[in-house]
Amino acid sequence: MLLTPGEAHFFTDPRYAAETATTITCKRHIAKGPLILEAASVIKRKGFRRIGFEPAWMNLDQYAILKKALPAGVSLHPVSNLIEDLRAVKSPAEIALIRRSVLANSEAFARTLKRFRRGSSELEIAAELEYQMKALGCQRPAFDTIVALGERSALPHAHPTSRRVQANELILIDMGATLDGYTSDMTRMAFTGTPPQRLRNLYNAVLEAQLAGLNAVRPGVAVDKVDAACREVLKRHNLAKEFVHSTGHGLGLEIHEAPKIGKKDKAKKDRAQKAQAHKAAGQKAPVQKPPIELRAGMVITIEPGAYIEGFAGVRIEDTALVTERGCEVLTPTSKEFVYL
Amino acid sequence: MLLTPGEAHFFTDPRYAAETATTITCKRHIAKGPLILEAASVIKRKGFRRIGFEPAWMNLDQYAILKKALPAGVSLHPVSNLIEDLRAVKSPAEIALIRRSVLANSEAFARTLKRFRRGSSELEIAAELEYQMKALGCQRPAFDTIVALGERSALPHAHPTSRRVQANELILIDMGATLDGYTSDMTRMAFTGTPPQRLRNLYNAVLEAQLAGLNAVRPGVAVDKVDAACREVLKRHNLAKEFVHSTGHGLGLEIHEAPKIGKKDKAKKDRAQKAQAHKAAGQKAPVQKPPIELRAGMVITIEPGAYIEGFAGVRIEDTALVTERGCEVLTPTSKEFVYL
Repeated sequence: MLLTPGEAHFFTDPRYAAETATTITCKRHIAKGPLILEAASVIKRKGFRRIGFEPAWMNLDQYAILKKALPAGVSLHPVSNLIEDLRAVKSPAEIALIRRSVLANSEAFARTLKRFRRGSSELEIAAELEYQMKALGCQRPAFDTIVALGERSALPHAHPTSRRVQANELILIDMGATLDGYTSDMTRMAFTGTPPQRLRNLYNAVLEAQLAGLNAVRPGVAVDKVDAACREVLKRHNLAKEFVHSTGHGLGLEIHEAPKIGKKDKAKKDRAQKAQAHKAAGQKAPVQKPPIELRAGMVITIEPGAYIEGFAGVRIEDTALVTERGCEVLTPTSKEFVYL
Repeated sequence: MLLTPGEAHFFTDPRYAAETATTITCKRHIAKGPLILEAASVIKRKGFRRIGFEPAWMNLDQYAILKKALPAGVSLHPVSNLIEDLRAVKSPAEIALIRRSVLANSEAFARTLKRFRRGSSELEIAAELEYQMKALGCQRPAFDTIVALGERSALPHAHPTSRRVQANELILIDMGATLDGYTSDMTRMAFTGTPPQRLRNLYNAVLEAQLAGLNAVRPGVAVDKVDAACREVLKRHNLAKEFVHSTGHGLGLEIHEAPKIGKKDKAKKDRAQKAQAHKAAGQKAPVQKPPIELRAGMVITIEPGAYIEGFAGVRIEDTALVTERGCEVLTPTSKEFVYL
């Protein structure tokens, strides 16, 4: 993409000529050679002198080709997080698309639960969840579906295996769908039988933390305050150390977008470091402020968890919209512990 | 990754500490900050002065941070396609993994055909194919599965829709699996009923082209000769203009790898252009020779097609191994036109 005053230019190759004719509404350029060369020729034709570029999304090959193709006197300036920050707040049309993705994801979960049989493997359950997503019109899972049985639920990034569901077994399911380009994200827990007291206590503590997190969501609140709301509850249950990840993340076209709902403002530090590096390389880089306060229109996940190695991991996750007045949980699926 | 004489260094963050402990055999560095900074500190500690980097895989943020972290006197040199060219020829262990991926992909196809019912939608068939892949232990499809009915088969990159299979309808299925990280790729055609003569002729012409392509595969042959073998057959059937894409591509960890089996040596031109651009940017870039001749151990697809707008598209695709003596077709699925 090349954004010029009042105009947006989209570059693609002949393979996508037919598809983009109906889906791309801005000025379209079908290039036979490298797209970056085509962009350079538009810049030359229009006589632009100062060009911003996204340093996290341009590789050194593209940069070298662009620099060589531009006349002397045209300067290139890194501009970080410009699009990412714009994308953190969703338009009403985008929110409508995310709602549809969230509903399809929850429906795939419901249909899979209906068909659930003991003896299924983690892989088979994941396959069924992804089948239902696709049959509901989703393009693909937003990420590799996580289905983790028993003590495997305590692994933060468990890949499904051929291990089969037995009686009295915990099941963690973390799933998301991509529908018309927009993502969703949900984690739910089930148990085949009646969970032991220790597990029910763990579940209730995480659920309490998740509700506290949702309750803290409103425009103007700092993201680390939302994270702290979850963390305080788990601390009260002596589970502070067992909550090893952040509370949540934005989502939209990508499954991880700004803002990150985390403990401390790491994003700010990272940005300052990058800006400093670009400056040292002789490029002036305007420092963008990271979105550290929630704003209405942001769509985020709230997903605290507690992981006890060798015993169990519990995570509960919703996709939620920041509204003018607070928070709307988009995920319709019940958060009751599912007994199968 | 940082490759130093006699040692390979792998950088990752704490989230992947547990998983990489058992899967990564080289020297492992768990970094809390940016990975590129951790690499810079190894470079400094070891006192290296000339550092090669992959310009197509390093973004400007990473480059700026690396450059700033390295002492004056340490120089950075773009080295293009070093890994890509190494990866074009597969090791016996890799070939064994690709064989497993190809077999799982074909088995998913066979199981889906067994369950096939008229009235299914493109989306449902794609969902079933991907379900079977996953149930067979694959991590995910290697790409979004293509299922295109009737005249939609003539669209080069058709996304599955809710259109349902009727009687006397052509079905194009292009599918691939990722199993233990390695990919596979296959295209097959089916028809609900008895295909009309015109369609059978089209099918036979493409099959003849595909067999001619496979027949041309052997070590030492230029990739454009394999492409020409397919193209000549289709030309004889007056289908030269209907074959709108390349004959095939390498595959392995990615679904598209070197070599590209295409008409002319476009890769060579692209590389020369990049090298020239880096030179103009004051960086010496050693020009790598693209793999334009087949070598034993390469794994490629042979997938000619002919697309007649408003009527039908036919593509037939196998995954094949270049052997010392010629070519081994890895795909076990019959290439007979499937009548359902």
